[in-house]
Amino acid sequence: MEEKVNIRKPHRPTGKPVRVQKGGEKKVILKPRKDGAVNKRPADRKIAGKKLKPLKIVFLGGVGEIGKNMTAIECGDDILVIDAGAIFPTDETPGIDLIVPDVTYLVENKKKVRGLILTHGHEDHIGSVPYLLKELKVPVAGTKLTLALVDNKLREHRINDAKEIVLTAGQTLQMGCFKIRPVNVNHSIAGAVAFAIETPYGTIFHSGDFKIDLTPVAGQTIDLKTISEIGAAGVLLYMGESTNIERAGYTMSETVVGNTLDRLFAENEGRRIIVATFASNVHRLQQIIDLAVKHKRKVALSGRSMHNVLEAAEKIGEIRIPDGALIDIAKIKNMRDGEILVISTGSQGEPMSALTRMANGANSQITVGKNDTVIISATPIPGNEKLVYRVINNLYKLGAEVVYESLEKIHVSGHACREEHKIMHSLLKPKYFIPVHGEYRHLKKHLQLASEMGMPENKMLIAEIGNCIEVTPHGLKRAASVQAGSRLIDGEGIEDENDSMVIEDRLKLSEEGLFIVTVAVSGGEVVGEPEIDSRGFVFGFHRDYNKEIREVVLRAIDAVNPSNTAELKKQIKKSLRNYLMKKTKQSPMIVPVVIEI
Amino acid sequence: MEEKVNIRKPHRPTGKPVRVQKGGEKKVILKPRKDGAVNKRPADRKIAGKKLKPLKIVFLGGVGEIGKNMTAIECGDDILVIDAGAIFPTDETPGIDLIVPDVTYLVENKKKVRGLILTHGHEDHIGSVPYLLKELKVPVAGTKLTLALVDNKLREHRINDAKEIVLTAGQTLQMGCFKIRPVNVNHSIAGAVAFAIETPYGTIFHSGDFKIDLTPVAGQTIDLKTISEIGAAGVLLYMGESTNIERAGYTMSETVVGNTLDRLFAENEGRRIIVATFASNVHRLQQIIDLAVKHKRKVALSGRSMHNVLEAAEKIGEIRIPDGALIDIAKIKNMRDGEILVISTGSQGEPMSALTRMANGANSQITVGKNDTVIISATPIPGNEKLVYRVINNLYKLGAEVVYESLEKIHVSGHACREEHKIMHSLLKPKYFIPVHGEYRHLKKHLQLASEMGMPENKMLIAEIGNCIEVTPHGLKRAASVQAGSRLIDGEGIEDENDSMVIEDRLKLSEEGLFIVTVAVSGGEVVGEPEIDSRGFVFGFHRDYNKEIREVVLRAIDAVNPSNTAELKKQIKKSLRNYLMKKTKQSPMIVPVVIEI
Repeated sequence: MEEKVNIRKPHRPTGKPVRVQKGGEKKVILKPRKDGAVNKRPADRKIAGKKLKPLKIVFLGGVGEIGKNMTAIECGDDILVIDAGAIFPTDETPGIDLIVPDVTYLVENKKKVRGLILTHGHEDHIGSVPYLLKELKVPVAGTKLTLALVDNKLREHRINDAKEIVLTAGQTLQMGCFKIRPVNVNHSIAGAVAFAIETPYGTIFHSGDFKIDLTPVAGQTIDLKTISEIGAAGVLLYMGESTNIERAGYTMSETVVGNTLDRLFAENEGRRIIVATFASNVHRLQQIIDLAVKHKRKVALSGRSMHNVLEAAEKIGEIRIPDGALIDIAKIKNMRDGEILVISTGSQGEPMSALTRMANGANSQITVGKNDTVIISATPIPGNEKLVYRVINNLYKLGAEVVYESLEKIHVSGHACREEHKIMHSLLKPKYFIPVHGEYRHLKKHLQLASEMGMPENKMLIAEIGNCIEVTPHGLKRAASVQAGSRLIDGEGIEDENDSMVIEDRLKLSEEGLFIVTVAVSGGEVVGEPEIDSRGFVFGFHRDYNKEIREVVLRAIDAVNPSNTAELKKQIKKSLRNYLMKKTKQSPMIVPVVIEI
Repeated sequence: MEEKVNIRKPHRPTGKPVRVQKGGEKKVILKPRKDGAVNKRPADRKIAGKKLKPLKIVFLGGVGEIGKNMTAIECGDDILVIDAGAIFPTDETPGIDLIVPDVTYLVENKKKVRGLILTHGHEDHIGSVPYLLKELKVPVAGTKLTLALVDNKLREHRINDAKEIVLTAGQTLQMGCFKIRPVNVNHSIAGAVAFAIETPYGTIFHSGDFKIDLTPVAGQTIDLKTISEIGAAGVLLYMGESTNIERAGYTMSETVVGNTLDRLFAENEGRRIIVATFASNVHRLQQIIDLAVKHKRKVALSGRSMHNVLEAAEKIGEIRIPDGALIDIAKIKNMRDGEILVISTGSQGEPMSALTRMANGANSQITVGKNDTVIISATPIPGNEKLVYRVINNLYKLGAEVVYESLEKIHVSGHACREEHKIMHSLLKPKYFIPVHGEYRHLKKHLQLASEMGMPENKMLIAEIGNCIEVTPHGLKRAASVQAGSRLIDGEGIEDENDSMVIEDRLKLSEEGLFIVTVAVSGGEVVGEPEIDSRGFVFGFHRDYNKEIREVVLRAIDAVNPSNTAELKKQIKKSLRNYLMKKTKQSPMIVPVVIEI
C-alpha cells in the first residue's frame, strides 16, 4: 500500500532534486527515500529488546476549548506535532488580533521535534503555523490544499524557507519513530485527513475534524474501509474530535445544500444573486459554480480570500472551473442581473469583508438594491451572531431579499453527530480513548458516548491544556504537566497571557475609565496646582464634581511628605479611589503622575 | 362586558378610599368611576362633528431592535404609552449597567401623557419604568403580576408615590380619549396581555409578546374568542410582535417542558436536582414545584430574584405552593440528596447569580458534586452563550450531570411562530399593520407574512425608532420624526448616547490602551524631564522602546513654543501618534498633560 511521498522544500534542497514547472511557479520536488523517512534517523528505533522510553501525549491546545488545536506525541527522542491552530479573540481579550498556543514546551525540546502534520486547512488547525515556524524550524506535512492555505499565511509573514511535505492518502510518512498514514475524511474543507500513527507501542488514531458524508460533492467519501482495517489491526489510542457530540443523529450531506441552492437559483430567475460563504469550503464553491453554469449565470468573486483560495484550489485540481464561467467583477456593471452570480466573503459579518461593505453601501464594485437576492450559506460561529444579523438587517434596508440559515437549508455542518461518532468508535475499537476538540462539556459527552459503546471508564480520560498523558501497557497515566496556554498576538507584539497586565488594564479601562492626577514636585515641595484629567468615566461626573475631586486630591497631597514619590502616589490613588467609590460605586483606573523638576 | 377596575394609589389617595388588609400589607383600593376613567377628561371627546386631531404612533423603542419596547399613541391632547422596557448593554457599551429609551419627547409633552400601560413584566417591557417615572408622573397600569414586578423595581429606586392601576382582562380602562381593553395572551410569564385600544379613529390592537398555547400550565389560554370579536368589530391598526417570525410552524406548549422534567426527575431518583430557570416564568416554577411534590422532594430556593418573584406571585395568587413544599435552603444540608430540589437563578450564566456561584464553588449554601443533576431550563439569550457554557463546563468539572437545551426539551419559547402569527392576522383582519418587537429582518419578514395573508403593501410599513406615523383614513403617513434613541445608565450617571465621548473613549482604551505624557512648564519654559506612562499598550513595547519614545517626545517639545499649552499638547500627541503607528500599527489614546508651575 505504501507509495511515494512528495517533499516540497523551496530553499536549499538536499537529496536529488527534480525541477518541475507547474502553473508558472518553480517547485522543487525531492525524490524521497523508499521507506518514506525524511531525515536520517533510523526507522527501526523500535527494535524489540531495547528498553522503550514512555509514549506521551502532550496537549498544547484544543482541549477544554474549541480552537487552537495542537497535540504533541512524544516517544523517546522524537516529538511529532499534530496541527498548529489559532483562535480568534473575544471581548475578554480586547484589541488582540489572534491567540495562538504557548509552544514553550516544543521550543525547549527543539531537538526532538521531527515535524508538524496538519489534518486540514482551517484556522483552528493551521492558524499558528507561522508563529510556530518562527520559533522552530520543522518540516510541515499536509495535503495539497492544506499546504496551499499554509503558503498563503507564510507569504504574509514573509517566511519562505519552510520545508513542506505533501501528504496523500494511501502513502505513509516516517518522522522519527512515527510512521504516519493519512486517511481521507469528509469535512467542510477539501483535503481533510485523519492520521493513523504507528508508534513503538502501537497505533494512535487522530480523527482531525470529520463527518461521514457518503454523498459528498467532490473528492472522496471518508475512507471507512481503511479505518476499519486500521481498527482490525489494533488501535492503541483514539483521539477523536467532539465538536458536534451534543447533536443526535447524523449530519446532513453537503449535497443537501446544492439542492436548496438549485431551487433558490430557479426561484430567483432575473434577479442578481450574491452568495456569501467560507472561501475555504471548496466543495461548496464547486456546487455554487456548477449551479451558476446550469442556470446560465457568470460567476464573479468578491473578497480577497475568495480569490486566493479559488486560485490555490484550482491550481492543485481541487476545484474545476468550466472555461468562461468566471468573469471579472468589474464587468458585472454591464450585464443583466439575471446573468450574474457573485460569490462573496463575509458570511460571518466580518467588519471589513466584502459582504459587510456591500451591506453598508461601501463596496465600490457592488451596489445592493431591490433586485438582489443575498444567500448567506453559513452558520454564525458562536460570538458572531450580532455581526451577521447586523449585515442581514442592513441588506434588507437596502431593499434586497436575504436568505439565511434560520429560513432555509443552505448550510450543513462539517462535524460528525453522535451516530457518526458511534460508527467511528465501533470501527476503531481502540484500547484507550481521549476526546479532543471541544469544551469540557463536549469532551465529557464524548466520554459518555464511548462508555455507552462499552469502553471501560479507566481506559479514557479528559485532558486539559498542558496535560502530559503517558500511554503505558497498563493504562493512561497523568504525568507532570508542561508549560502551555495562550499567547496573545497584538500587532507586532506577542505575550503570554499570564505575564502581562495589558489585558487586565484594557478591561478595567473599558469598564470604568480612568483618572490621571499629575503633581509637580520641586526640592521636596509640591509646586503649582495638580492637574486632574479623566477619560471614559461616568458621564458628566468630572465636570459636576470638579471642585470636590480637587479638594480630595489636595488633602491627599497634604497628608504625606512630597519628597516620598511612592508614598505620594499611593495616597492620591487611595484617597481618590475611596471618594469615587463612595460617590459613584465605580472604581476607575487611577494613574498618579509625579513630575520632578 | 365592562367591569370595575382597581386603582392602587399608595399615596395621597383621592376619591373614596376603601382600606383593605391583605398579606400583611396595607393597600389602598380606590373605587373607580363607573366609566373607568381615571381623570377628569371627558370620555366623549370623540364626538362626531368636531374636527379630530390626527392619530399618531410614535416609536420610542423596540423597532429595529429586540429590547426596550416603548410605543406612544397620540391623539389630540392625549398620549398613551405602551410599555417602558430596557435592554442590557453589549460589548459595544462597556461598563454600562442598562440602556433605556430616550423619553425626551414624552417629557416635552408631559401634560398630554395620560398613562403608561404594560403588556407584561419582562425587563424589555418594564425595565425603564423607574427611569420614566423619575421624569414623568403618570399612572401605570398592568396586570397584578406585572405591577408586583414593577413594585420590586420601584422599591430599589425608592420611588413610593407611583399611581398604579390593576388591569384585568374583560375590564376596560379609560385614559384620555383612549379606551383600553386588556386581552389575555400566553407568554413565558404569567399575566401577559395584549391591548385593544379604542381611539376616535378606530381600534388599535397591540399584541404585546404572545404565543398561542392551548394547553398552558396555569392561567388561561390566549383569548382567541375576544380577539376574534375585536377583529369582527373592525381593527384600524395592528401592531404585532415579531420575535419568532423566522420560525416555521407553532411554538411548543409549556406542558412539553413539564413532561420532560417529569421523566428527568424519575430518572434522577436518589440524586439531588437543581433546576435553573427564569424567576419570572411563574408557570415554569409552578410545574417544577408540582413535580417536586409528585416526586417527594422538598423545594429550596436559591437566588434573590427567585425569592422575590415567588413571594410576589404567591401573594397575588399566580402560583399555588402546597403547604410544606418549600423549605429554607439552609436545611438541605441535613437532608438526603433524593429529597431535595433546588430552584435557582442564573440560567443565563449571569456572573453573580446563584448557579454561577455554585459552578465556581463559591456558593456558601450549595456545594455541587457527583450526586447532583443540574437542569438548565432556559435558552441562552443571544450574547449570553459563552457565559452559559462556561457555567456548564464548570459544573461538569465538579462532577455533576448537566442537562441543557441542546440535549433535552427543557425549554420552550414564549413567542409565536409563523403559523400562530397567521392566526392572529386572520382573526384581526386589520386595515393597517405595523410590525413591532424585532430587528429589521424580523419586521421585514413579518411584513412578508402579512402580504402572504393578503394585506396590500401600501397599508403597512416598517417603523424605526423616533418615527412618528400618522394613521389617517387615507393611509399610513410618515410625519416628522421626534427625538428618540438610547440613554445609557452607568451607576448614578445617565447620558444620551450621542452626547458623550465616554463610550467612545472606553472602546478606544480597551482596543489599544493609552499613553500619558506629562510636561511641566514654568515661565514659558519646559522644566524637568517629561514623564511618560502607558497602560494597556502592546506588550513590552514601552519597556523595549523607552529611549526612542522619550526622544520622540523631546523633539516634539523642542518644536513648539512651550508657553502655548494647546500647541504643545497637540504636537506631543501628533508626534507620538505617528511614531507608534509606524512602529506598531496601533493608535492608542494619547493624553498629554501640561502642568504649569
